[in-house]
Amino acid sequence: MTTVAAYAAPAAKAPLERTTIERREVGAHDVLIDVKYSGICHSDIHQAREGWGEAIFPMVPGHEIAGVVTEVGPAVSRFAVGDRVGVGCMVDSCRECESCRAGQEQYCTGGGMVGTYNALDKNGEPTYGGYAEKIVVDENYVVGIPEGLGLDEAAPLLCAGITLYSPLKHWNAGPGKKVAILGMGGLGHMGVKIAHALGAEVTVLSQSLRKKDDGLKLGADHYYATSDPRTFEELAGTFDLIVSTVSVPLDLAAYLALLKSDGALVNVGAPEEPISLNLFSLISGRKTLAGSAIGGIAETQEMLDFCAEHGFGAEIELIRADQINEAYERVLASDVRYRFVIDTSTI
Amino acid sequence: MTTVAAYAAPAAKAPLERTTIERREVGAHDVLIDVKYSGICHSDIHQAREGWGEAIFPMVPGHEIAGVVTEVGPAVSRFAVGDRVGVGCMVDSCRECESCRAGQEQYCTGGGMVGTYNALDKNGEPTYGGYAEKIVVDENYVVGIPEGLGLDEAAPLLCAGITLYSPLKHWNAGPGKKVAILGMGGLGHMGVKIAHALGAEVTVLSQSLRKKDDGLKLGADHYYATSDPRTFEELAGTFDLIVSTVSVPLDLAAYLALLKSDGALVNVGAPEEPISLNLFSLISGRKTLAGSAIGGIAETQEMLDFCAEHGFGAEIELIRADQINEAYERVLASDVRYRFVIDTSTI
Repeated sequence: MTTVAAYAAPAAKAPLERTTIERREVGAHDVLIDVKYSGICHSDIHQAREGWGEAIFPMVPGHEIAGVVTEVGPAVSRFAVGDRVGVGCMVDSCRECESCRAGQEQYCTGGGMVGTYNALDKNGEPTYGGYAEKIVVDENYVVGIPEGLGLDEAAPLLCAGITLYSPLKHWNAGPGKKVAILGMGGLGHMGVKIAHALGAEVTVLSQSLRKKDDGLKLGADHYYATSDPRTFEELAGTFDLIVSTVSVPLDLAAYLALLKSDGALVNVGAPEEPISLNLFSLISGRKTLAGSAIGGIAETQEMLDFCAEHGFGAEIELIRADQINEAYERVLASDVRYRFVIDTSTI
Repeated sequence: MTTVAAYAAPAAKAPLERTTIERREVGAHDVLIDVKYSGICHSDIHQAREGWGEAIFPMVPGHEIAGVVTEVGPAVSRFAVGDRVGVGCMVDSCRECESCRAGQEQYCTGGGMVGTYNALDKNGEPTYGGYAEKIVVDENYVVGIPEGLGLDEAAPLLCAGITLYSPLKHWNAGPGKKVAILGMGGLGHMGVKIAHALGAEVTVLSQSLRKKDDGLKLGADHYYATSDPRTFEELAGTFDLIVSTVSVPLDLAAYLALLKSDGALVNVGAPEEPISLNLFSLISGRKTLAGSAIGGIAETQEMLDFCAEHGFGAEIELIRADQINEAYERVLASDVRYRFVIDTSTI
């Protein structure tokens, strides 16, 4: 066991504070990673405050991890000491079910994926995330960060990047397709970059026009405020695909009306409360309401390579570890452009 | 104008009674059809009772129409006097929008399809449906009923048949696919027949096992009662596709849990009330909640040819026109095996 410094929430809704945790010994298939940067995801806050249900405390959040390999187990074949690597939202899965075998470990049905934190591993031990100096992870749940991507700007790709890349690819965003990204936050800004790089015509639907300049700079072709009722008149029947990154309940019918026939509204944001919907909104125009969760390990690697090839990471604000609690408040106030990343050397 | 006998609801929620209506002169592109049989669809009742919103009265329901051509306009090319034909849920559309040009006239965005009844045609005149001796329809919204299909058993295919055929085809029901049909009524029993004929492994999910023998006879491989909680345990993660024919609000999360990853729950039944759903049910497993409305004209013809080729129509109970009101009550009580069809010679 190795004792490492970390930031943890000692209990639900309590502020995060510096502490130490134990990491397991490096097993045959494990890599030990010096965490360099760890992104702050809205879901860290949902979980630290038990918005998504009962959680495990103390909790070390963080599933947007970028670092460098400092030790490898004897059976490790994919990584070597010195490699720049990332860890996202999962550190294990059953590896045997249909989803795991299809490279969609995030939809593992053999007990579910093991979350990077707020989960129990196969030995029943709680997992602790990336707000820490070091982490030990099975190499099969580690991805390589290509040269050309800074580790700081790469960190948020491990969740925010793959969360948008996977549905944009699955629902065929590309040339000739009109794609709307709903919400211009940590997830949304990655949606703009990726959808643009895939060749789609990209529209941002944001509460206000406050971030319009940024949106256009990142690759959006159009930018509309959802607070303006004219937006819904003007854009009726426009989109092939809307990806919603919003995690508060929306009037889904209003957004479904912006789709063409056979269009899809895909939710990657996860409201804590149920939504209400008249099914006629789906029946008229054979529309799809769907959801999507991160992506598989191989697809995460593909996404990182895609971002490196297109020369972009996330837009980040680098913070010290002692700014985490303040950063949480700013995330909740939508006051971040566009992802806080913790410099873990400050832990 | 031609005066024809019909059954109409004089006002919302009023019983239907015998009356007469005027049919337009046969125009250049029109065919005059002697209606022989007219099916009773649950949506006739929804509309006659204004369950779906304000309606037009007097209302002659009926959009499952089978009959024989008795006159054709000078420009008609597809039909001749004596042809056996059907008319479904629409009698016109804009013919110019993307949906119309794609053969999906039911999703017309150029003003919407013109319903066979409870709608206004392009001249602003109310349309009247199939509970009548005769009807005049533009030939482009008429389909041929193949030899080998009785007109009586063919009538319900014009709505119930195409409503199930279209989503089953669109979501790839076929060999190797596990398909559930939710609800064993007028729509559901057609879903069983069609999904079985397409080669899928078919499961009926019905409130009780009361119609189990029928379901298995019509082609189901399995039959479960949704009133039994064990059904939901046993079938978790089983289906590629569930088609819901139910028009009361359901606990959709419970049904979404029966899907595999990437599975789809497609609603063809239309509850009057909104449903409530936690979007996590879609995000976990990248699941789709969708809707589907009837099918296009060409697809309706394809469906009729498919049914004829496989040797089946609908299972029907033939009634006299003076039994319509009683039949409505029996539909609402789920007491019909499986579609009432009016012998319109009794009007």
